[in-house]
Amino acid sequence: MSHSACVVAILTVSADRARDLELELVRCTVASRKEAGCQRYVISRDMETAGRFTAEERWASTEAFEQHLETPHFRALAGLLDRLDATVQLMRVEPLDEISDGV
Amino acid sequence: MSHSACVVAILTVSADRARDLELELVRCTVASRKEAGCQRYVISRDMETAGRFTAEERWASTEAFEQHLETPHFRALAGLLDRLDATVQLMRVEPLDEISDGV
Repeated sequence: MSHSACVVAILTVSADRARDLELELVRCTVASRKEAGCQRYVISRDMETAGRFTAEERWASTEAFEQHLETPHFRALAGLLDRLDATVQLMRVEPLDEISDGV
Repeated sequence: MSHSACVVAILTVSADRARDLELELVRCTVASRKEAGCQRYVISRDMETAGRFTAEERWASTEAFEQHLETPHFRALAGLLDRLDATVQLMRVEPLDEISDGV
């Protein structure tokens, strides 16, 4: 039984490239939310650190998340992150209230 | 006009203290979701790094978020994080699709 795949990510580029990345992030958000397996896709700007963004994602399954990584819109974002020498901290996470072995 | 206050945080303790923190995080989640201004409060476990947790929060206003920080359940969590010498990366964020000056 496959269950949701949740992701939290922190994306950081230099402040002077924040607008370039933001444009691509908005594009990717619009396209990702149209994917069948997308249950949540929220990209946010850090209010205190220019060039830092957070991603909060939820996918219907690990397969849905892996398919997302192969989409043109994600590939375009990944390419830009690479060109901008971004720092990407990507975490696969499990909400505590959905963990069977939780406390 | 005050609008929502969104927070993404990364909490990290040593792996051997993860269970202690998890218990307090669950307590804080249950109590926080009862707060009038709480619109979203999801704490998750990092699936690959033991002792690392993420928080995704949304509050009706900055005032609601600041009141949360004064609650007994948050104070208890903050005290434990202190005692466990946790690393806390807390970001006030703005979802791109809610920013008026966005791209």
